[in-house]
Amino acid sequence: MANDQPPRPSRRGFLKAGSAAVAAGASLGASAAAQAALGKTSAHSADPQMAVEPFYGLHQGGIVTPQQSHTYVAALDLTTEKRDDVIALLRAWTDAAARMTQGSTAAPLPTGAAAKAELADTRIETQVGTKADARTDNTAYSQANTQAAPDSGDVLGLGPCGLTITFGFGPGLFTKDGKDRYGLASRRPAALVDLPRFNGDQLIAEKTGGDLYIQACANDQQVAFHAVRQLSRLANGVATMRWGQAGFVSGPRGQTPRNLMGFKDGTNNPSTAKPQLMNEFVWARATADAPWMEGGTYTVVRRIRITLEHWDNTEVGFQEQVFGRHKYSGAPIGKKNEFDAVDLKEEDKDGNPVIPENSHVRLSNQASNNGAQILRRSYSYNDGTNFYIERWPPWRQETEYDAGLIFVAHQSDPRTGFIPINDKLAKFDMMNQFTTHVGSAVFAVPPGARPGSYIGAGLFET
Amino acid sequence: MANDQPPRPSRRGFLKAGSAAVAAGASLGASAAAQAALGKTSAHSADPQMAVEPFYGLHQGGIVTPQQSHTYVAALDLTTEKRDDVIALLRAWTDAAARMTQGSTAAPLPTGAAAKAELADTRIETQVGTKADARTDNTAYSQANTQAAPDSGDVLGLGPCGLTITFGFGPGLFTKDGKDRYGLASRRPAALVDLPRFNGDQLIAEKTGGDLYIQACANDQQVAFHAVRQLSRLANGVATMRWGQAGFVSGPRGQTPRNLMGFKDGTNNPSTAKPQLMNEFVWARATADAPWMEGGTYTVVRRIRITLEHWDNTEVGFQEQVFGRHKYSGAPIGKKNEFDAVDLKEEDKDGNPVIPENSHVRLSNQASNNGAQILRRSYSYNDGTNFYIERWPPWRQETEYDAGLIFVAHQSDPRTGFIPINDKLAKFDMMNQFTTHVGSAVFAVPPGARPGSYIGAGLFET
Ligand code: HEM
Ligand code: HEM
Repeated sequence: MANDQPPRPSRRGFLKAGSAAVAAGASLGASAAAQAALGKTSAHSADPQMAVEPFYGLHQGGIVTPQQSHTYVAALDLTTEKRDDVIALLRAWTDAAARMTQGSTAAPLPTGAAAKAELADTRIETQVGTKADARTDNTAYSQANTQAAPDSGDVLGLGPCGLTITFGFGPGLFTKDGKDRYGLASRRPAALVDLPRFNGDQLIAEKTGGDLYIQACANDQQVAFHAVRQLSRLANGVATMRWGQAGFVSGPRGQTPRNLMGFKDGTNNPSTAKPQLMNEFVWARATADAPWMEGGTYTVVRRIRITLEHWDNTEVGFQEQVFGRHKYSGAPIGKKNEFDAVDLKEEDKDGNPVIPENSHVRLSNQASNNGAQILRRSYSYNDGTNFYIERWPPWRQETEYDAGLIFVAHQSDPRTGFIPINDKLAKFDMMNQFTTHVGSAVFAVPPGARPGSYIGAGLFET
Repeated sequence: MANDQPPRPSRRGFLKAGSAAVAAGASLGASAAAQAALGKTSAHSADPQMAVEPFYGLHQGGIVTPQQSHTYVAALDLTTEKRDDVIALLRAWTDAAARMTQGSTAAPLPTGAAAKAELADTRIETQVGTKADARTDNTAYSQANTQAAPDSGDVLGLGPCGLTITFGFGPGLFTKDGKDRYGLASRRPAALVDLPRFNGDQLIAEKTGGDLYIQACANDQQVAFHAVRQLSRLANGVATMRWGQAGFVSGPRGQTPRNLMGFKDGTNNPSTAKPQLMNEFVWARATADAPWMEGGTYTVVRRIRITLEHWDNTEVGFQEQVFGRHKYSGAPIGKKNEFDAVDLKEEDKDGNPVIPENSHVRLSNQASNNGAQILRRSYSYNDGTNFYIERWPPWRQETEYDAGLIFVAHQSDPRTGFIPINDKLAKFDMMNQFTTHVGSAVFAVPPGARPGSYIGAGLFET
């Protein structure tokens, strides 16, 4: 399989004049990449910059992959009318993603000599003028545009950083405005439902939906964004950005990270180390309507703003009631350790439930949802501040953080996963006083690709 | 001086049930903190999470401190009428900042026993109801609000991460709407000018200005934001958030990081290792109008959006002409190595300047600016996407990245530093085709505090 891997002039190896430390890193990274390519297993390294995740395989990466520290998620809308354009885009994306996850640029960079020649050819005569002149005269731009850089180059010198890239298909790929644009309408999986409106939703159209999904996760913020940026550029003329969003988790390595509300987040996820749980709750099966989804998953993304200012004015005891867990230990209320079982039946001496009725954990636990489980792989986000008019108490109009959670959940079927769980949460969760769902999307995430093939081949070619 | 340090139940030490790795980290961090406290020198560690920077000292941290990987910068507007409120806020900020930079929470957390009792006292009766009910019934909130959590707790378990916190004073502290709110009008330094409007500025009021400045820099995104969040909360009733902004740099350790345009950024900064350069270009001197600024600096912040989509469609040769430097090596055009001198006089065989007339580096170099230098300490930012109507070619209306540079520059006097340099850049810089200044602020950053005193004491008390 190593032969099927794209050439690998690695992001790190590229820099010839690097320091000794980087040179050492480069060789470590390269051998790790080779290992990952050969074995389809991820190459872990003490240095998170040097981690390498396989791209090709039964499943796409970024689903059961141990969570990297950063993400950039994005959705694009297809503008082309042609099925072949979509296939060509998916092929190009597959190749570029395979390269980038292994630590390469999206496309080969010119060699030193070629780059020099190119530079000489395109020497731009610069004009002295006012800024207004510079902006309205785009001669320089059109000259320069003849042979755009193959890669933005902004992550040269960084390692592969455990990058995974995950692609998904939104409802609009199958039908849009009642139109079957690409002859795929009959292949839309029943599980790829349009999400219903939930209680309290305040969705912003420009942060919602999308025909195509790209989820890049990496141990570095710029590496994650870089991936989406190169892929989005490959879509020029075929698809346009609908929304993009950066996210992060900070945590002591190997421990459950805390979200911005200060609670450990991810504790009671189904264990990715248990294949039978993943088969039951995460991986889609081939169905009559969507045989091509075997080994894929369905991904729900919600941009959930949290009014942190408001939350920070509450006391810890109250916050623990909201979640149904202790803040510092992460243990279920009344228990000692983070991973102690959540027992919803427990009562205190007065006969009150120890884990409160409308606590987040009680409402979302499988015991309250016919055994349903989803694999959450969420990130915090932090987009500065905005002026908000809040619709619930304490009523206020002020500048607040535009920060919260990019909730990402993978599941075998959202009709038994996210939808019923969120329906309950949207109605009853005490946390709703502090949260507002402002973005939403759902995607069918197809299985992984074999080298030589491309992501989504099963949808187009079987 | 160690005795003057606030108590230090470190963020890491707090977690008793941590893994062995974290326990080891905790002791390392604690001794590093002690070292920093004693010696006023930063305690570096192979693990960037464990780095500790001193808080007290002649100068504030975060100015000549080697740049950490993340920042959160913010400005607040004072709402109080009382001078004493401002002093009390600065005292509270100083104490909390000293604690947080050494790895502690903003205020002591209750001990285990106290926390348990508190929890029992405040057990909230939860009501079953619709979400609308939950949101409009704020009994729970007002009950909970009686004794808010002393710290949001979201960075427990993380190390000090080299956190520095830098405070500054905007023009509005001295006079606002013609009013001398705090009896400080006569103490406003002449160097704290209102910035002029520059060619091409498209400033957004909610991202511009501010009476008070907080700049938190750390090797972790959540640690930087956490600091501003606790400080902003301490300002409740006295000041409100005007704007906040997260930023980052990604770079192979010890090398110049690349900005989102793919160029190494920071190469030709005056060296912080040379005290005479810092004295000349960065540190303010005591002047007749502002004796209290000795050892301080003046900080300019600009939020500069970059249309990366547009930039990514240009070729490398053109990009190099824009900056006047080679992209991959970072060397001045025509040179080999990043740190080779920028020689503006060099000409090619046709007599054209090797470093183009309107290149960024030529226009901003000291040789073009009467020898002026500023200390840039900028970060990239990445706030997702927005819909934009672009005012220069290629004209377009579309969803684009809201990403770019949080330009931060420290200098002894903006009248000879940022203002003339930016005036030139705003008019002639080829880069302007790709950049838009949307936020702007200027602050007088006072010197550091002595233990027992507070940041800004010289302004209020001499
Ligand atoms: C800002 C929004 C949210 C925050 C801050 C948040 C936070 C948390 C936290 C701290 C926990 C407990 C630790 C854990 O088991 O991971 C948790 C559990 C959980 N959350 Fe959320 N959550 C949010 C939104 C949602 C949404 C929208 C859903 C799904 C519709 C959801 C589903 C779950 C599930 C299934 C669990 C596990 C419950 C259990 O089995 O014990 N969460 N969440
Ligand atoms: C998006 C905005 C900007 C970007 C991407 C950018 C990027 C760069 C880069 C790549 C360099 C060359 C490497 C170095 O010496 O650091 C540089 C140099 C420099 N820039 Fe900027 N810059 C921006 C805005 C500004 C602004 C607004 C100013 C000041 C008003 C400024 C002042 C300087 C100075 C003084 C130098 C050093 C020039 C020399 O002495 O060689 N830059 N910048």
